[in-house]
Amino acid sequence: MKIVIDAMGGDFAPQNVVAGAVEAVKEYKTTVTLVGISEQIEAELKKHQFPKGSIEVVHAPDVVAMHEPATVVIRQKRNSSINVGMALLKKEGYGAFVSAGNTGACVAAATFVLGMIKGVDRPGIGCVFPSLKNFTFVIDVGANTAAKPEHILQYAKMAKVYAREVLNRPKPTIGLLNIGEEECKGTGLEKEAHKLLEENEPAFVGNVEANEVFTGKTDCIVCDGYVGNITLKVAEGMMESVGKLLKREIMKRPVAILGAVLLKSSLSEAKKSVDYSEYGGAPLLGVDGLVLISHGRSSPKAIKNAIRAAKEQIEHNVLAKIKEEMLLEK
Amino acid sequence: MKIVIDAMGGDFAPQNVVAGAVEAVKEYKTTVTLVGISEQIEAELKKHQFPKGSIEVVHAPDVVAMHEPATVVIRQKRNSSINVGMALLKKEGYGAFVSAGNTGACVAAATFVLGMIKGVDRPGIGCVFPSLKNFTFVIDVGANTAAKPEHILQYAKMAKVYAREVLNRPKPTIGLLNIGEEECKGTGLEKEAHKLLEENEPAFVGNVEANEVFTGKTDCIVCDGYVGNITLKVAEGMMESVGKLLKREIMKRPVAILGAVLLKSSLSEAKKSVDYSEYGGAPLLGVDGLVLISHGRSSPKAIKNAIRAAKEQIEHNVLAKIKEEMLLEK
Repeated sequence: MKIVIDAMGGDFAPQNVVAGAVEAVKEYKTTVTLVGISEQIEAELKKHQFPKGSIEVVHAPDVVAMHEPATVVIRQKRNSSINVGMALLKKEGYGAFVSAGNTGACVAAATFVLGMIKGVDRPGIGCVFPSLKNFTFVIDVGANTAAKPEHILQYAKMAKVYAREVLNRPKPTIGLLNIGEEECKGTGLEKEAHKLLEENEPAFVGNVEANEVFTGKTDCIVCDGYVGNITLKVAEGMMESVGKLLKREIMKRPVAILGAVLLKSSLSEAKKSVDYSEYGGAPLLGVDGLVLISHGRSSPKAIKNAIRAAKEQIEHNVLAKIKEEMLLEK
Repeated sequence: MKIVIDAMGGDFAPQNVVAGAVEAVKEYKTTVTLVGISEQIEAELKKHQFPKGSIEVVHAPDVVAMHEPATVVIRQKRNSSINVGMALLKKEGYGAFVSAGNTGACVAAATFVLGMIKGVDRPGIGCVFPSLKNFTFVIDVGANTAAKPEHILQYAKMAKVYAREVLNRPKPTIGLLNIGEEECKGTGLEKEAHKLLEENEPAFVGNVEANEVFTGKTDCIVCDGYVGNITLKVAEGMMESVGKLLKREIMKRPVAILGAVLLKSSLSEAKKSVDYSEYGGAPLLGVDGLVLISHGRSSPKAIKNAIRAAKEQIEHNVLAKIKEEMLLEK
């Protein structure tokens, strides 16, 4: 199965994307299809060495910029790397699509080109957060910013399968993100969703507060895409700023610089546990195809890890298993 | 002016509260009134030494537990330390109220006992987040979880005064928390609020994403209390977990332990910049009295700093200045 890559997606495309794809085909013995402006892709490929036949290039003339409105892929740029790449998934031999490009455009194109799977009304982006107990899988972090209670229930069911099949949690637990543990807490959406989850999802254990994302109280957390996106951005922003702040303080003191050198491997281990690029792409669940969205600032390593994640999801048959779950009666 | 303290509020009350109050009267030469079960307060006071006449005790027989519903202060426990303490603010000589107790109950009691100031419909809790440029003042972090666009505008006006008078920003800028910078982003609330702010608040500079809380792009950020509370909890949870993770990694390597020792003062400086207890209480703005809410897990130092913050706000006449601002025409 080939993994399709949006070669034009991300702040450092196509160079980082092509570099990551080359690393992936070498390390994971997989084959990939790079989609985008073929001249630019070929020019990047010339800088690298890789096994013959492991990388295919498919031309797509349009490029969706990072800040264009999502609807551009449906209305104007139908020949963008996102649309063309996504459409390949409907053909034999293509197993997953990876993009570090415009998230909104990926969500729109996936919904439009691939369609939704039966039993799911809206797609949701899942994200693996590092926690004291390994990780927490949070969905939705931004695909659907006007979620209804039934969407939240659908996210819970898909999260359960994803955590079990991809993240090795045989019996995943699910929490509902809220501002308090009591079931009376939250807005109308959370109260309704709590009720629906309690009645329909045995893996549901109740409300969890946002700090529990990092303690790992539950394996999965479901929420509206607006709140989930804020959660993701706070975590990213904080990590980055705390790192800068620490560096600033360290540079003030020579003895501290020595200390930092001695601490280096501990710091890098801890950083690894909180480094999103280690986890690969964020899965877009609910659409009829395996789609992974990587960070816009993806390094080659992040792209490589997203390809590894895509490969694992193909091997674990995640899409088929989610489809099965959604057809199950309660 | 005396500062009124809820002696029964917080996870470690009355001991931490009394200890913090004693430190404060000694360090800041202020006078405080401890409200709560007088026997318990007197027993704690016996453990400390402090200037005669600097601490007054006022008896209040009821105690609101941390997880009781907010309405308990209005319906059942009218003689709680929160109600009795809040009511003192209406008397001559009492300048501010500080509580590390049940946040919801404090908000309800403040609204009920003190009432709203003219031009404000709903109270909002402000919170100072550390940022690369010193700090960001975010309001509302949880008083009003169903904010309307006009409440957000009111928060902006109050935040402006608070940042100017208390946080030494002569010309504070204000951003609206959103999931993207474009004005078309967000839910109906954010779109409406964006329009209102643009038309009515000259300090408004546009939407900001949640990571900007830590970069300090704007001095103040306004948002709905639900999203603001999630932001606060994510930041707190992440800080705590990253610290634990780092400690865990360090303890695995002897050389890293030495490194950590050499790094100690840098780490503690960086920690100070992100330590909420350094900033004192979170102001509850919009009610007709100075109210500061401290973290439920407040240490004596956090209580002491909240008292210092209350003292500064009395001296800066913050309440009168907010009232003035709210009466101004655009």
